Amino acid sequence: MTTKTTTAVYPGTFDPITNGHTDLVERAARLFDKVIVAVAENPAKKPAFSLDERLDMAREALAGINNVQVCSFDTLLVDFVKKHNARVILRGLRAVSDFEYEFQLAGMNRRLESEIETLFLTPAEQYSYISSSLVREIAALGGDISPFVHDSVKAALNRRMR
Amino acid sequence: MTTKTTTAVYPGTFDPITNGHTDLVERAARLFDKVIVAVAENPAKKPAFSLDERLDMAREALAGINNVQVCSFDTLLVDFVKKHNARVILRGLRAVSDFEYEFQLAGMNRRLESEIETLFLTPAEQYSYISSSLVREIAALGGDISPFVHDSVKAALNRRMR
Amino acid sequence: MTTKTTTAVYPGTFDPITNGHTDLVERAARLFDKVIVAVAENPAKKPAFSLDERLDMAREALAGINNVQVCSFDTLLVDFVKKHNARVILRGLRAVSDFEYEFQLAGMNRRLESEIETLFLTPAEQYSYISSSLVREIAALGGDISPFVHDSVKAALNRRMR
Amino acid sequence: MTTKTTTAVYPGTFDPITNGHTDLVERAARLFDKVIVAVAENPAKKPAFSLDERLDMAREALAGINNVQVCSFDTLLVDFVKKHNARVILRGLRAVSDFEYEFQLAGMNRRLESEIETLFLTPAEQYSYISSSLVREIAALGGDISPFVHDSVKAALNRRMR
Amino acid sequence: MTTKTTTAVYPGTFDPITNGHTDLVERAARLFDKVIVAVAENPAKKPAFSLDERLDMAREALAGINNVQVCSFDTLLVDFVKKHNARVILRGLRAVSDFEYEFQLAGMNRRLESEIETLFLTPAEQYSYISSSLVREIAALGGDISPFVHDSVKAALNRRMR
Amino acid sequence: MTTKTTTAVYPGTFDPITNGHTDLVERAARLFDKVIVAVAENPAKKPAFSLDERLDMAREALAGINNVQVCSFDTLLVDFVKKHNARVILRGLRAVSDFEYEFQLAGMNRRLESEIETLFLTPAEQYSYISSSLVREIAALGGDISPFVHDSVKAALNRRMR
Repeated sequence: MTTKTTTAVYPGTFDPITNGHTDLVERAARLFDKVIVAVAENPAKKPAFSLDERLDMAREALAGINNVQVCSFDTLLVDFVKKHNARVILRGLRAVSDFEYEFQLAGMNRRLESEIETLFLTPAEQYSYISSSLVREIAALGGDISPFVHDSVKAALNRRMR
Repeated sequence: MTTKTTTAVYPGTFDPITNGHTDLVERAARLFDKVIVAVAENPAKKPAFSLDERLDMAREALAGINNVQVCSFDTLLVDFVKKHNARVILRGLRAVSDFEYEFQLAGMNRRLESEIETLFLTPAEQYSYISSSLVREIAALGGDISPFVHDSVKAALNRRMR
Repeated sequence: MTTKTTTAVYPGTFDPITNGHTDLVERAARLFDKVIVAVAENPAKKPAFSLDERLDMAREALAGINNVQVCSFDTLLVDFVKKHNARVILRGLRAVSDFEYEFQLAGMNRRLESEIETLFLTPAEQYSYISSSLVREIAALGGDISPFVHDSVKAALNRRMR
Repeated sequence: MTTKTTTAVYPGTFDPITNGHTDLVERAARLFDKVIVAVAENPAKKPAFSLDERLDMAREALAGINNVQVCSFDTLLVDFVKKHNARVILRGLRAVSDFEYEFQLAGMNRRLESEIETLFLTPAEQYSYISSSLVREIAALGGDISPFVHDSVKAALNRRMR
Repeated sequence: MTTKTTTAVYPGTFDPITNGHTDLVERAARLFDKVIVAVAENPAKKPAFSLDERLDMAREALAGINNVQVCSFDTLLVDFVKKHNARVILRGLRAVSDFEYEFQLAGMNRRLESEIETLFLTPAEQYSYISSSLVREIAALGGDISPFVHDSVKAALNRRMR
Repeated sequence: MTTKTTTAVYPGTFDPITNGHTDLVERAARLFDKVIVAVAENPAKKPAFSLDERLDMAREALAGINNVQVCSFDTLLVDFVKKHNARVILRGLRAVSDFEYEFQLAGMNRRLESEIETLFLTPAEQYSYISSSLVREIAALGGDISPFVHDSVKAALNRRMR
């Protein structure tokens, strides 16, 4: 039995990265040889934070994990995955509505590149209700977002909201 | 970067194994060093086939794949996973109703053994509507099940239904 | 433009037929030249009523609609549909959990017979919560089921429950 | 403004009561003047524990909460609710598949008794994956169920499984 | 047993209030001592009607119910709830996609303020398909919205669409 | 038995038409005497293609099917359906999230015009993951969209994206 080296790509907008994302990366990093957190430029979605800000926040929040790398991408996801010699796309599944969209995306990506697999993880239950948009909304209304994001993200959100 | 050896366990009743299961195992076998297909004894579910029949059908259907092993188990799934030094439970996600049950199961298993992760794959779309119980139902009514199962499973089902 | 004659088959266990089923048949009968209500023998489901009782109740409940015929079947659904020169299978969609199972069934049936289409209707909202099993449960506990079923079904359920 | 006295009925099979049920009762007891935990006799479901065992386990698990009463019922739920001068049925919503069934039930019950409302609570996220049937399954396979149920329930399950 | 005074807050954008909202408030007003309809300012959602218009429409539609109060809020919902000494957030559940978002929101709010509970009601079935956005769309295309909204809302929508 | 002439209207934004839409029209054209593909002007949705472009692409993609007609509409759907003496609205159901919205829409339309029925078809499984927005996204990132759309649509998308 030869041992495979497996790189997994975890794509998203990360606007901003939350403790739910971090939890998923930590667990993936124990399973795969390398995890690439791929921050989509995604100008069509009009992110609240610039690409550089989102990369910085992700890097700070994930600084403690060894085999993780944070990159940006502005191409087709499957092209990014191939360029990095990866075979796995990782996605978190919080809820049914996630699942529907993810299912479509996985089907499309499989059609575009049949060798790449999408694997889904569910978040630890204490993170199952966290989403980047809810976190931004709470911060905008002055709520305390400490339980949901890394300190550096909290600082960035508070700067932004002021 | 040290290379991890990853064993994935794919548990189920496999009553009987379908082409949807086989497709999932094939794709998993490209990602993980070893895939253990774990056939649950599951007497409470009153399977249509005996444990030995289910093991035999699974072994025949999966004979062409190298790094796959078919075993039975009658213990707690997480105990089986630990005993085989595996870290990953694989599950297929066909539909929303699957997801709900799987989500509960993954939560329970994480609580019982926090080091074990459940990873989900979606089947290729041409297998998304196949289930073991529908296959049994069609066979019982004399329908042609060739598109859904391996030849040896078809033969076993036809013997059973006569 | 030549005019097509379309026969639609509406299969189910009808254990017993409810006002939700009747509403769906009435609406289908306005759209299709002929609607065949196909009562599945379905011994595996251990119906509460015998096949003959279920046929009788369906016939009484649907007596007022012209182009409707009530039949039993114990074969593969697609074979029954072909035998009656029909092209359409009708199914009611009450809820998401219905949808999942129906989606699988429609996929299977299309694979078995690609010329047959499954069409779904949603019930009028006042019938969206009625199911045969809930009706049986309420009758068994002495509740009034008049709002949910035809008078003849109510009488049959009360006889059964006594 | 006159103050209303509100009694809420929380029905279920409680086979056995889990920490998820207890959490829901605790939170309801802070909102309503009185919470009646109504254990359904439910012989059709073939419960694993007798009605008396289920009542005993529920009473032990809920002993610490003041305004809670544990009763059995073998009638239509809405009749039980009226007999206790209650206006509210409480139900926990763990997941989408729960929701579908609950929605039908709430619609049926509203039709049977329009003055009675069904209110839904979601469990605390750490209980979102616990179900009585999964707990029984884990116990039957020798797993540790301490995180999921009260000590007295654990003892009863272990006695039963031996 | 001391009697609790319970105030429930029903938050939303109410852009505009529909008969589905009104039905829910009527039923809640029979259960709780006081119901506060809390109209979110919500500039991020770019409502079709101004906050004042939405408040006026809600007050007219709900004028007949005694223990109801209509307020606006532009803070974190849980802060608004605490300020009014309320313990309950009320939400309507029309459909699965509602449920997903509501579940996240309830989880977030519980984390922000553990003493506040979110309770869900399902609308009467004849209102289950009404949404503010569909009503606006129908009005914009000249459809008759009388079955869906209060007369004063209809008048306001017609003025707006002209 | 008199034979009914049935016209079915298949409404949508078709921004652009995909192979999933075409598959559905082909199957509907075998069941109904006439299928009208009704392209909604829908300025509120800010379509990527103009109404004329969307009409042209739909006409090219559907050129091979006899009893199909492509029209635009900017009125209430039920008014368009009545104007064409049609009785059936056709909708594709890909997924649960579709279903929720479609269910609301069907309920609304039935209330506006009780004689018109909404019928749902599921796409062939190989099209179940295709959506117009995902196709646009892939084209924008330079991916190959040949498997998902007609050649003329591909050309139009490539012109647009340049």
